[in-house]
Amino acid sequence: MAGFKHLVIVKFKEGTAAADMLKGMQKLVSEIDAVKSFEWGQDIESEEMLRQGFTHAFLMTFDSKEDYTAFVGHPSHVEFSATFSTAIDKVVLLDFPCVVAKGSA
Amino acid sequence: MAGFKHLVIVKFKEGTAAADMLKGMQKLVSEIDAVKSFEWGQDIESEEMLRQGFTHAFLMTFDSKEDYTAFVGHPSHVEFSATFSTAIDKVVLLDFPCVVAKGSA
Repeated sequence: MAGFKHLVIVKFKEGTAAADMLKGMQKLVSEIDAVKSFEWGQDIESEEMLRQGFTHAFLMTFDSKEDYTAFVGHPSHVEFSATFSTAIDKVVLLDFPCVVAKGSA
Repeated sequence: MAGFKHLVIVKFKEGTAAADMLKGMQKLVSEIDAVKSFEWGQDIESEEMLRQGFTHAFLMTFDSKEDYTAFVGHPSHVEFSATFSTAIDKVVLLDFPCVVAKGSA
């Protein structure tokens, strides 16, 4: 699925219940129609040197950059982000128009 | 699309022709059937503090972890990785079974 993607990779602080964070994220995306898809995963395979401590990837897809911008400003997102940011040790965010170079994805 | 995902985020070295790298990657995924989808993007929106210098995300999808493992060991991948690694300033790799929590993606 092409569209506009919001990619978040994180290393949670020690002691964080990643399952609780995920539950909050699932509630968030279910509440906001602009989020067309939400996929995530926990690394099980990469070498530590390449993973660099990051453990989880979260990927949301929107129809357009405008929909993404609306999501970012949505009160539920603002509230969740405040909670999320207290739970993370490291984070990288990338937001980009997605190019599908092979497959329907 | 669920399956097994190979996520690569990079900051290329200054002077690297990202388009050439991408061309090599597209050739690679077109040659290897195990790669079911290949999506990528260049960040246009994230704040520098959150992007942390990373500029590009590359996401490949496989039917299974075994297909991913076969891809990693494929001679074309080994060759491309050697070239790719000379072009990058920073990289994070995450490899994970993908959970589709919303949408068909």
